[in-house]
Amino acid sequence: MTETGIEAVLNAVLFDDAGLAPAIAQRHDTGEVLMLAWMNRDAVRETLRTGRVTYWSRSRRALWRKGESSGHVQALRSFRIDCDGDALLLGVEQIGPACHTNHPNCFFREARADGLVEISQALEAR
Amino acid sequence: MTETGIEAVLNAVLFDDAGLAPAIAQRHDTGEVLMLAWMNRDAVRETLRTGRVTYWSRSRRALWRKGESSGHVQALRSFRIDCDGDALLLGVEQIGPACHTNHPNCFFREARADGLVEISQALEAR
Repeated sequence: MTETGIEAVLNAVLFDDAGLAPAIAQRHDTGEVLMLAWMNRDAVRETLRTGRVTYWSRSRRALWRKGESSGHVQALRSFRIDCDGDALLLGVEQIGPACHTNHPNCFFREARADGLVEISQALEAR
Repeated sequence: MTETGIEAVLNAVLFDDAGLAPAIAQRHDTGEVLMLAWMNRDAVRETLRTGRVTYWSRSRRALWRKGESSGHVQALRSFRIDCDGDALLLGVEQIGPACHTNHPNCFFREARADGLVEISQALEAR
């Protein structure tokens, strides 16, 4: 993207009081929702500039270049914002499991009649 | 769901300081991500009890029974929580457009080289 384009996107995003917006990562080809994380202005800028998804880690209070230590990077395929500008939807190409638990995605617990059940297996560590 | 099951889910959700958790609504059959909204404990409870999706409106500070005025209700098909328990993924059956702008979903603006473009049309009001 051009710098002008990046600035236009940044101006359209409504960050919250902590300077963050929630970002949904979705597999661009299958539609699988992988995870929800958070972005600040710098994370959005770096993601759009590099095409590699970078979040803001609320626990570490630092930019979180997804896959930096695990290798499970996300290549950006599309970047959308919602009607209010306060939520982001990223179309990504995911290398390896998206979740730090090694599950393919973070949403592996589903409500059934009597409570939560695990609906996917963690992948074997290589 | 049983009341025991609902309590088990509520105990697994990590609500933020405002008592809320972000909820992604995804069309259960096509995988289309429709919107991101927020739920408090009461919204989760009512959604699981009734099978009709209810959010918490941060602007109105009230329970928001999706489609109550528009008719564009969401029937719940699945309810998942993420690894950390602080994000929700709802599989839904959506009646009509999900977005209050009459777009099929709220994520109708996409970043291109020079800025944001609209990638879907608002449906005609009936």
